[in-house]
Amino acid sequence: MTGTEDEKFMRAAIEEARKAESRGEVPIGAVVTCDGRIIARAHNLTETLTDPTAHAEMQAITSATSFLGGKYLTGCTLYVTVEPCLMCAGALAWSQIDRVVYGAADDKRGYHVFCENPFHKKTKIVSGVLSDECSRLVTEFFKKKR
Amino acid sequence: MTGTEDEKFMRAAIEEARKAESRGEVPIGAVVTCDGRIIARAHNLTETLTDPTAHAEMQAITSATSFLGGKYLTGCTLYVTVEPCLMCAGALAWSQIDRVVYGAADDKRGYHVFCENPFHKKTKIVSGVLSDECSRLVTEFFKKKR
Repeated sequence: MTGTEDEKFMRAAIEEARKAESRGEVPIGAVVTCDGRIIARAHNLTETLTDPTAHAEMQAITSATSFLGGKYLTGCTLYVTVEPCLMCAGALAWSQIDRVVYGAADDKRGYHVFCENPFHKKTKIVSGVLSDECSRLVTEFFKKKR
Repeated sequence: MTGTEDEKFMRAAIEEARKAESRGEVPIGAVVTCDGRIIARAHNLTETLTDPTAHAEMQAITSATSFLGGKYLTGCTLYVTVEPCLMCAGALAWSQIDRVVYGAADDKRGYHVFCENPFHKKTKIVSGVLSDECSRLVTEFFKKKR
């Protein structure tokens, strides 16, 4: 997959992050693609649902597996604006997804802080796609909160 | 909390595991307690829901936070028949739960295989409660499957 295609789908994830922001949620968004099209879109809803498990990735995984009718995401790619936390990385491991593409690194709660590679051994990780824009969304959000 | 009380609540988690088994699911169950009473019960539903995130713990967390009306489980204990995986441990970290009590260790997919302590720094971990019974449920399940 070309960088341009990764950027195109990351833009869709950023669109999801903006939806989260408009609800007062930490602006993180995700999409899942399969065969070059988006099969799931989701954004962080932890405050709205008062549920600490309602991260964008978790909902995108549930939505994508529901769409495909199986509990695996082989052949799929997940795009997420911020590096997955340990919970989301663990969920992605169970899904056996082909690729995970994220934007901004998270040096506080990102999986890499705790564990070098929590993913399924066949999952490819790509980082830094549109990272400035992804990162800016979150930092601006917390600036406004203060 | 006394060992006897931990065993009492682990028995409720085992009851949940048996419900999973009767649905053809890997028999893992969980309950969440608060102030000495059970506020959430759940069992593994990954096959039924075709959702790799539908572990007993994840559903117990979602159910307990929904019951309490907040996204934290401070003051609560989660009992689960098998050591949480990385996904569930990560979710428990976000919930800031007081205690996690598990039965059988999981040397393949348990969090300890990947990471020494993925939990919130204030969370206390207790292992080995009714571990033989918890472990037997899973091993017997897979024996029958073969």
